[in-house]
Amino acid sequence: MSKTPPLVVIGTVAIDELSTPFGARQTVFGGSASFFSYAASFFARVGVVAVVGEDFPEEYRDVLKEREIDLSHLDTLPGKTFHWKGKYESDMNSAITLQTDLNVLLDFKPKIRYEKTPEFVFLANIDPDLQLSVLDQMHGSALKFVACDTMNFWIQSRKDAVLKVLGRVHAVFMNDGEARQLTGEVNLIKAAQQIYNLGPEYVIIKKGEHGALLYSREGVFIYPAYPLETVYDPTGAGDSFAGGVMGYLASARKVNLKIMKTAIAYGTVVASFTVEKFGMSRLREVKREHFDKRLEVLKKICKI
Amino acid sequence: MSKTPPLVVIGTVAIDELSTPFGARQTVFGGSASFFSYAASFFARVGVVAVVGEDFPEEYRDVLKEREIDLSHLDTLPGKTFHWKGKYESDMNSAITLQTDLNVLLDFKPKIRYEKTPEFVFLANIDPDLQLSVLDQMHGSALKFVACDTMNFWIQSRKDAVLKVLGRVHAVFMNDGEARQLTGEVNLIKAAQQIYNLGPEYVIIKKGEHGALLYSREGVFIYPAYPLETVYDPTGAGDSFAGGVMGYLASARKVNLKIMKTAIAYGTVVASFTVEKFGMSRLREVKREHFDKRLEVLKKICKI
Repeated sequence: MSKTPPLVVIGTVAIDELSTPFGARQTVFGGSASFFSYAASFFARVGVVAVVGEDFPEEYRDVLKEREIDLSHLDTLPGKTFHWKGKYESDMNSAITLQTDLNVLLDFKPKIRYEKTPEFVFLANIDPDLQLSVLDQMHGSALKFVACDTMNFWIQSRKDAVLKVLGRVHAVFMNDGEARQLTGEVNLIKAAQQIYNLGPEYVIIKKGEHGALLYSREGVFIYPAYPLETVYDPTGAGDSFAGGVMGYLASARKVNLKIMKTAIAYGTVVASFTVEKFGMSRLREVKREHFDKRLEVLKKICKI
Repeated sequence: MSKTPPLVVIGTVAIDELSTPFGARQTVFGGSASFFSYAASFFARVGVVAVVGEDFPEEYRDVLKEREIDLSHLDTLPGKTFHWKGKYESDMNSAITLQTDLNVLLDFKPKIRYEKTPEFVFLANIDPDLQLSVLDQMHGSALKFVACDTMNFWIQSRKDAVLKVLGRVHAVFMNDGEARQLTGEVNLIKAAQQIYNLGPEYVIIKKGEHGALLYSREGVFIYPAYPLETVYDPTGAGDSFAGGVMGYLASARKVNLKIMKTAIAYGTVVASFTVEKFGMSRLREVKREHFDKRLEVLKKICKI
């Protein structure tokens, strides 16, 4: 039993290998839960439910510790850590996956051992069955808000499980390509509407350099990305965006359209820092004040 | 000599033939000057400098007349009207040109015969030499503000002439693909900055469904497109966007960042109506109040 953080994420912790037009890195600390938790930690205490292998470097663990992230549920299993190899070409909006080695993820059976059920839960990109298994272990009325992410791979190969997850969450984060893929609908507003009809009250569509779109019963919200002259490495942009959003929501301790709008704006600025250096390097340099400052600039940029 | 409208556009008046996923039309009234002038006419009196052939239908002329557009410079030459054949596939963001018959455009030598120089001039998409020839005929201090548009075809085949035009205008409207093509720069902010360095004080990049980006000395402005569930025909969206912007500027009789932001917002809502039906059909159904109403909705959509 360990003290329950208000926000918990299940997802991947990975060792990435990647190249962008700005350079290549053989080993970068990555994974959906890593980026999410690091970003969210600026707003609320966050716990990670994930697995690593015996090769997982202590220095990566220290990166999460520097933000006081709860690692009581970061299990270590015999074998190697999940490994993703990808590249970005001139169109930095989409990653090209070159190799995926699931390694210890294959044997991961998350067991939730928190004292209480956390209030906010994020099901980051990972096998939808693992997302469901964690959700099954979340009992009681303490659970306020569950959101999920997914990716093209699961939509293509495990659509039924993805739909099951969507039927059980309050919010979904998806990129524009995935929303179109899931619904078969080119028009993003219609696609968002259809996803909304599958269950989530808040459908958040990430459009990369074009910002984000929120579809909800209470209305539509559109917010631009923070304009950057250089994007070094888009890896983790979506996860840290979700981390900023969920971290802010967890700090607000409730969700409505007004709070969600501000949360999306914070997610946007958090992601804008993420992509300025490889992996988590840039996020490790900033403080909460940096987000507030950039948010003020962004508000001005889209105000008439 | 004819009474000078405050806003004059040089561009094409065309008979289009097009197909979209929603249907096909053998003959649709089109052309950059047509869409621009119709859109601008909701805000200011506008004159068209263009040419048509002897086949140009009287009913198309009547469409422009119903908005009291000055047609004193709409010349008729022997031969056929400019004809564009294009299609849109599921990605409604970009047109595929199937055929272009310049016809009377080949012999078009615009002669400006207004009493005075107009205050606002728009060089809509047409041969850059024609744009320059019109600009050469605009003398005197009355000329307050000149903006231009262009297209991939001219950037590829006549880059020198396009650069000459850019060196002589206050503002340029370009879509994202064209901005990238002209500068060889993928990042839109950097591309906009480079175009700014070529001359125009205001660089307006049209991003289709993702809205518009303004780069200026006074700052950056980003505005989303009006969220539409169905886009029937994107033809003329860019031209009517520019028409809304320039019409609003002409009605304001001066330009600064604040006025430009509102102008871009109006251009955005005007374009959102244009694409709701084929050709100019939808624009012909609306009134200025429709724009104001939709603008209020749009403001709400992107406000935190």
